[in-house]
Amino acid sequence: MTIELSVDEFDRRDWQRAEEGTVRFALVGLGWWTREEAMPAIESSTFCETTVVVSGSTEKAERVAADSDTVTDALTYDEFRDGTATDAYDAVYVVTPNALHLPYVEAAAEFGKAVLCEKPMEATVERAERVVEVSEAADIPLMVAYRMQTDPVIRRARELVTGGHIGTPVQVHGHMSQPLLDVIPNPDQWRLNPDLTGYGATVMDLGIYPLNTARFVLDADPVSVGARLRSESEAFADVPDEHARFEFTFDDGTDGSCTASQNAQRASHFRVLGTEGEIDVEPVFYPDQTRTMTVRRGETTAEIRVPTVNQMTEEFDYFADCLLSDEPPHADAQHGLLDLRAAAAVYEAGETGESVDVAGGGLDD
Amino acid sequence: MTIELSVDEFDRRDWQRAEEGTVRFALVGLGWWTREEAMPAIESSTFCETTVVVSGSTEKAERVAADSDTVTDALTYDEFRDGTATDAYDAVYVVTPNALHLPYVEAAAEFGKAVLCEKPMEATVERAERVVEVSEAADIPLMVAYRMQTDPVIRRARELVTGGHIGTPVQVHGHMSQPLLDVIPNPDQWRLNPDLTGYGATVMDLGIYPLNTARFVLDADPVSVGARLRSESEAFADVPDEHARFEFTFDDGTDGSCTASQNAQRASHFRVLGTEGEIDVEPVFYPDQTRTMTVRRGETTAEIRVPTVNQMTEEFDYFADCLLSDEPPHADAQHGLLDLRAAAAVYEAGETGESVDVAGGGLDD
Repeated sequence: MTIELSVDEFDRRDWQRAEEGTVRFALVGLGWWTREEAMPAIESSTFCETTVVVSGSTEKAERVAADSDTVTDALTYDEFRDGTATDAYDAVYVVTPNALHLPYVEAAAEFGKAVLCEKPMEATVERAERVVEVSEAADIPLMVAYRMQTDPVIRRARELVTGGHIGTPVQVHGHMSQPLLDVIPNPDQWRLNPDLTGYGATVMDLGIYPLNTARFVLDADPVSVGARLRSESEAFADVPDEHARFEFTFDDGTDGSCTASQNAQRASHFRVLGTEGEIDVEPVFYPDQTRTMTVRRGETTAEIRVPTVNQMTEEFDYFADCLLSDEPPHADAQHGLLDLRAAAAVYEAGETGESVDVAGGGLDD
Repeated sequence: MTIELSVDEFDRRDWQRAEEGTVRFALVGLGWWTREEAMPAIESSTFCETTVVVSGSTEKAERVAADSDTVTDALTYDEFRDGTATDAYDAVYVVTPNALHLPYVEAAAEFGKAVLCEKPMEATVERAERVVEVSEAADIPLMVAYRMQTDPVIRRARELVTGGHIGTPVQVHGHMSQPLLDVIPNPDQWRLNPDLTGYGATVMDLGIYPLNTARFVLDADPVSVGARLRSESEAFADVPDEHARFEFTFDDGTDGSCTASQNAQRASHFRVLGTEGEIDVEPVFYPDQTRTMTVRRGETTAEIRVPTVNQMTEEFDYFADCLLSDEPPHADAQHGLLDLRAAAAVYEAGETGESVDVAGGGLDD
């Protein structure tokens, strides 16, 4: 088997079907990620436009709206849920704290709007199950915002792996870490509050990257997990996972060895070893870093400095393309629910020290 | 804290004390590793000389001796154990299959000779305990041949980690794999025979590299392990670990996520993530590959293409230096025994699916 990597078209949009059209978004939650990442990404997109912004206060929503040429309506959360300005948007980007995804999915479902929901889909398995029920009952398209799935380098890795170019996958290593309290210097932030984040701070927010990326690249799902979680610093007293080590067995037999930390050097890596080759991408998960993909087969090593794309633009345009083409997105609500089940199993394994079946569903069952 | 890496002296011998002297070696076991790696390494060493070669047949020993300018005696295993030519050597390099280390350590102990013993120290915890007893009773220096411990890049990594330059170590990832049956195309080879290899084929031979390197770089020891081992190919029917995934908790709290395989692409990597930095070396464990060490602190990344040294020359000279200086080597018999206990715990964890304490000693207890 020959590996052929088209360098010229490395960042091609293999998923694109729509030729024209615009999807108008209501952005629910105006934290730094929305303002600094999502809004500029939508501005440079092909198929998307921000027309509505939704926040806790009228003042903040209006301030954000004033900075935009496309926003027509600035709403409070209550106004949004009351159905204000539903004619002004086609889809909703839910980017609130984890435990506040469900109410906005419910509102979107009531109004018949498509939903792009930040990951993880909700704070618990039970609430994620509600997201599935609500979106399926209303028959609205819902995609979980796993930006790695539309990242060209991860799509190229998936093509190589599922195409058999590294033989049979054997082992995956993945990692993501950051010094959370340096990035967001607020000890009262929602990611450290179990009522808002769910089972914990690190696996829910960072650990889900290597997990979901492995699922996508292998085209396989986790069936059981082991884990060791620990919180040692005072700031992490309310969550079990300042540092997390977790292992997955996937349904194709592949082993996944993952780590994540909210209190360490910012770093990320992802690799798949196969019987006949290896692919790694490093750094991989942070949107602002230049990434390198390395492909090894026998004694030959190819290194590709990956072209920089705006991950969020790719994600928004992919989602819009699905809506405009009337095709289901890959990371749908059932897909997002399985990650919650896997995360819950990791937290249970961390608590009990024993391996936990993902199918069993974890802490909530 | 500032990281200062002296590029000029990257491969300095920080351990060297001896100024002159020669240690004469008897090489016990004349497989390809001895002939193609050890003998040339000794030839280019400062303090070592091969004077005696020992094999199963006189013919093979004499053939190897004929290719050398320094060998004075070519012996069979029986002749060696009978005490032939003990005046011709000062130290013994034991490089037989794992389960045949003990008898030659016993012989060396009887003759009062120092021992450099290939890793793992023996095939089982019980036999490794005998190696400890025998060498301690005879008061002979014994070093386990962990060539990474004298590899300059690993010594530099250890200096950075133990010197606090990446903050507190949090997580280690390590891996080593090769397509064993392509490297040695013989289905009857000793590494696949539990009577000779011990608990298994992969953790004993390859997995011990990330484990022991982590111990050395962290200056910490493993206290408990989890594992998933699997053999799927016919050739691996007699051993449990064609592929191995294993996790260590170290006594300083650090998590280790390791994998190894005897039936996959040749690959190796090793990294330590800390609260304030990260160090990785890749490739790392194979002696013939050009390695790169990457050090990250905050947003700065330094990449060092590591100078090529002969790992075995460094190892032999380090051991000889210890003997000439009358100083104990770092990887002594107790150090080697702990790796056997850790390996046994990995195999037990793989069998039971439960986490196993290393102190408890694993399968033999």
